[in-house]
This record gives sequence, C-alpha cells and structure tokens, in this order.
Amino acid sequence: MSVIMTGKDLAARILGGDRRAVARAISKVEDGSPDLPGLSEALYPHTGRAYTVGLTGSPGVGKSSLGEQLVRAARSRDKTVAVLAIDPTSPFTGGALLGDRLRMQAHATDPGVFIRSMATRGHLGGMALAAPEALRVLDASGKDLIMVETVGVGQAEVEVASATDTTLVVVSPGWGDAVQVSKAGILEIADVFVVNKADKDGAGDAVRDLRNMLRMGPKLGWTPPIVKTSTVNGEGIDELWEAIEAHRTHQESTGELEARRRRRVVEEVRSMVAFHLRERAASIADGGLLEDLAEHRIDPYRAADILLKQLIDADRPGA
Amino acid sequence: MSVIMTGKDLAARILGGDRRAVARAISKVEDGSPDLPGLSEALYPHTGRAYTVGLTGSPGVGKSSLGEQLVRAARSRDKTVAVLAIDPTSPFTGGALLGDRLRMQAHATDPGVFIRSMATRGHLGGMALAAPEALRVLDASGKDLIMVETVGVGQAEVEVASATDTTLVVVSPGWGDAVQVSKAGILEIADVFVVNKADKDGAGDAVRDLRNMLRMGPKLGWTPPIVKTSTVNGEGIDELWEAIEAHRTHQESTGELEARRRRRVVEEVRSMVAFHLRERAASIADGGLLEDLAEHRIDPYRAADILLKQLIDADRPGA
Repeated sequence: MSVIMTGKDLAARILGGDRRAVARAISKVEDGSPDLPGLSEALYPHTGRAYTVGLTGSPGVGKSSLGEQLVRAARSRDKTVAVLAIDPTSPFTGGALLGDRLRMQAHATDPGVFIRSMATRGHLGGMALAAPEALRVLDASGKDLIMVETVGVGQAEVEVASATDTTLVVVSPGWGDAVQVSKAGILEIADVFVVNKADKDGAGDAVRDLRNMLRMGPKLGWTPPIVKTSTVNGEGIDELWEAIEAHRTHQESTGELEARRRRRVVEEVRSMVAFHLRERAASIADGGLLEDLAEHRIDPYRAADILLKQLIDADRPGA
Repeated sequence: MSVIMTGKDLAARILGGDRRAVARAISKVEDGSPDLPGLSEALYPHTGRAYTVGLTGSPGVGKSSLGEQLVRAARSRDKTVAVLAIDPTSPFTGGALLGDRLRMQAHATDPGVFIRSMATRGHLGGMALAAPEALRVLDASGKDLIMVETVGVGQAEVEVASATDTTLVVVSPGWGDAVQVSKAGILEIADVFVVNKADKDGAGDAVRDLRNMLRMGPKLGWTPPIVKTSTVNGEGIDELWEAIEAHRTHQESTGELEARRRRRVVEEVRSMVAFHLRERAASIADGGLLEDLAEHRIDPYRAADILLKQLIDADRPGA
C-alpha cells in the first residue's frame, strides 16, 4: 500500500469504507490540513445518510460506559457505528482519556465499529468547526450511526454534542440536585435525558428533579424523555435506544430533522467565514493601532472600527 | 433626579462613582445599547486602575460564599469592591441565582461595595464581549477590586473568569478526584487554586490531587498556589488574600500584568471585528447559496468562499 494518498484517492477510499483512509482524513481535520477543501468537495455530496447522536454530561456520570452499551445495542440491530470522542486539548487529560477509550477495546476487531478520539491540533476553527467535518468523513464512510461523546461539559464539547440529530444529556444520582443540574447549563440542549447509574441510590430523586425542571422550563414541541440506565446490569439500554428512535421519528415526521441539519450547516459556514476574517484581521492589525489601544488613547469600539475598515480595504482588488 | 441621562452625563456620573449611573451603564451593556461606543470612548481613558479577580468552579463548590468572604477581606483592608456575577441566560436558573445573590445582602448598605449580576440580553458578542465592557464601567467608577464570579463552568463563564488579572479556580472535597478535576478543563486557567469547604473530609486529598496534577502539567513561570478555605469558620481567607496579592506582585514585577491586559484588549477588539463581520455575513447570505448548501450541491468550504467574496464586495464603496 502506498504511503502517499492523493486527495481524490483518499476520498474514494473513504467512500469505500477504508478504515485507514478514514483515520487519515480525521487526522487531516485535526491538523487543519490544506487538503480539507478538496476532501470536503469530494465527500459532501455523499453525506447526510448517517444519524448522529451526541452524548454529553459532567465528568464521572458514566458517558463512556453508556456509549459502549449503545454501540452494542446498535450492533445487535445490525447497524454500523462510529464513535468520535472529543478530547479537550489539555496537557493534563491525556491519561484519563486513554483509560476511557480502553473500555471500547471490546469492539476493536469488529469491522462494523470505528472508534476514534479527536483533538484539535491545528484546525483554524477549533473543535466547533473540526468536529462537523470529522462527522462528515464518518458519514461518507457509510456508518449508519455516529456517536459523538464528550469528556466533560466545556464549551466546545457541549457545542459539538448538541450539533447532532439527537443529543443525550447524561446525569447520575450522585451528581447533585436539580439546582446543580440546571446551573451547568446543559438542560436546554437535551433531546433525551439519561439518568445513569440507576442501580445507585437517588436515581429516582434525579428523575423527579429533572421532571420538575422540565415543567418549569418553556413548552416545547418535543418533551425530552427521561430514561434510567445502568451500565452494570444493562438496565434501560433498550429503552434508551427506543427513546432515540422515537426522537428520530418525531423529527422526521415534523420535518425538524431536515430543518435542524440545514441550520447547522448554514451556521457552520457562517462560522467558517467569521474565523477566516478574524485570522485576516489578526494579520493586518497594525502595531500603532494596538499600541494606541493598549495605552488607552483609543477605545475598543473605535479600534474595532478602524480594524474593520483596514480589513475591507486590504481585500479590495488592486489594493 | 432626571430620568433621562445623556451619554456624557452618564459617563461623568460613573466617573464620580454614582451607583445608579453604574447600574444603568451595565444594563446598557447587557442590552447591547447603541450608546455603548460613546460611553466606551468617554470611560476608557479612565480605566486600568482596578485589579480584577475571577472566581470560577463547578456549581456547588461554594463560590458565592467565598466571594462574600473576599468582599469582607477587601473591606477590612479599606479596599472598595465591585462584584459582577455572571448569569448564564437559561430559563431554568433564575431562582437559583437569586438565592446566591441574597447572601451578599450583608453588604447591601455599604457604599464601598457594588454588587450586580449580569446576563446578556441583546449584546452582540454575548458574555465574552459584554463582561469586559461591564468591568471597565466598574473600573471607571473607582472601585479598587473587581471580582467576577461565575455560576458554573460553561464556556462563556470560564472565558470571562479567566479574562481577569488573577483567576481563582475553586474546587471542593466532595467534587471528585484529580481525574474529574482535570476533565473539567479549568486547570489551565488557574492562577490560584482554592480548595473550599476545608472543614469537610477529603480536603487534604483534594490538595494532594491538585499538587500531583500540577506536577504533571507544563512548567510555568508562576506555579499556582493551593489554598484551603472554609467559609464556615473563615479558615484560609487571609491566606487566599495573600495568594492573590502575591500573584499580583509577581505579575507586576515581571511585566506580565501589563502584557496580559494588552493581550486581552487586543483579543477583545479582534472578537468585536469578527462578530461584526459575522452579523454582516448573516445579513447578506443569499437564499440560493444556502439552498445549494443544504441540498449538498456545494460543500461548506466553497460556500464559505462565495460568502466571503460577497461580504467584501458588499462593503466596497460604490457597490
């Protein structure tokens, strides 16, 4: 096998489901490779078939084990699965993440399962822009279900997990009362709530708290169901699978799935434009302006105005 | 007192320390009022005197009580203080926040203390851009110390808390082991670690875990000290105050304080430019392009290119 793959060759291999090609493409996404526009052009027409599920929640609630059981549930229904684990780029977390990933080793030899953790090493737009690209690579490779699992509830992680067709928010009985849950700011993004570790004391309380909070919130077209699961005894995994399917059916019948996907990709393109312009703004910012700003001679609003004008002028043909 | 204040009048009153004027200006920041550029121009030359401290950490670790004790510590040292509590705009959290704020009532009649919680209602750039503006209002009003306290560890909150001169990351013994701490992704932003609820079991373990994690991380010019506090018996509050002072002295002697402040305001201006352009991109995006994108006829990269070109063209004089 040749070490070098051209863009077209790589795209063709991904569309054929070649695992090494998929892995390589995701590395390119992580790095923000210059090959990405070409790859995107070749793959994008072949995307939109996979169903995506996001898994988020605080550290320690058991997201990884739950993800592993959902992989099993998918495989027992003859669905192929990809898992993308979002790795916050922290110098402190390497070991912890690796440990989590090891639990997925049970599926390492199953060709119907592709597991990959992902960091952003050089991608211009950070995880928020890198993850949708990686999802499209997995989608184009022919996987039926793609799960995005986050380690914690950081900004990029929540953003990424909620940019899916169905978002699962996982809590555990030990995590705290309803007030703490709401403070984390992840209630609003849930399509399905999972109270994991249902074998532990307090699971019923967590369900009741969530139910009360949902009652306090705004009325929605879809009321997120609350599913109790235990990855120790497998309790609730089938119910969780059915809740995901029910949400999918609801969205398909209302047209919301298509509408949501459209909003996501439009939003993504706008972010790409904004990031691009921001990089450009950084490159043209002249020292005098920033010095005046730092010395409190001009205020941030005026500095932004000047910078904006310079940016537009710099881009005019003949300038 | 007149109900209407002009921009200049408002700025003059803020510079004179008028509490109502300060409150009104912060409301303007929340709303993204069109008066902000004028206000910014009038106040900015008078900012940079206050020292800012950010307080962040997971819900339930006791940040509010700690903040309250730091207010006391500042007052006993004859420092005037403002507290800005960042309120994530969630329909679920109103009640919880209010409860937290009530603990600050002890200082309600002290003219040397100004307390305000802040949400973003209409500000274009969200909390990340609104908070620095509010901080400058408080700075211009003459407070010696400004504390920014977040409710949780959401994106905007962490961003805002770390955009201060000294950032305190608060954990509590019950919160979990070192791995959980690191997963939250807030280790990197700490200038000082606070292990609060030191009266509870496990505080020593939390300190040891943090120490180990710091050892695993990159070597830094400043090693964040770890301070044990208890807001029940007041343990460690003086030590915490001294740790903040030590960090300030370190930064002043190395020139890092000035450098950090410069980086922040330059970054802020770049964000203002990027947000402005993004809004503009949203307004000119033509339907045909987005339809082609949604129908998978053009890929996100190409769509971004086209949008970028339209954006620059639309801004050319005479276009």
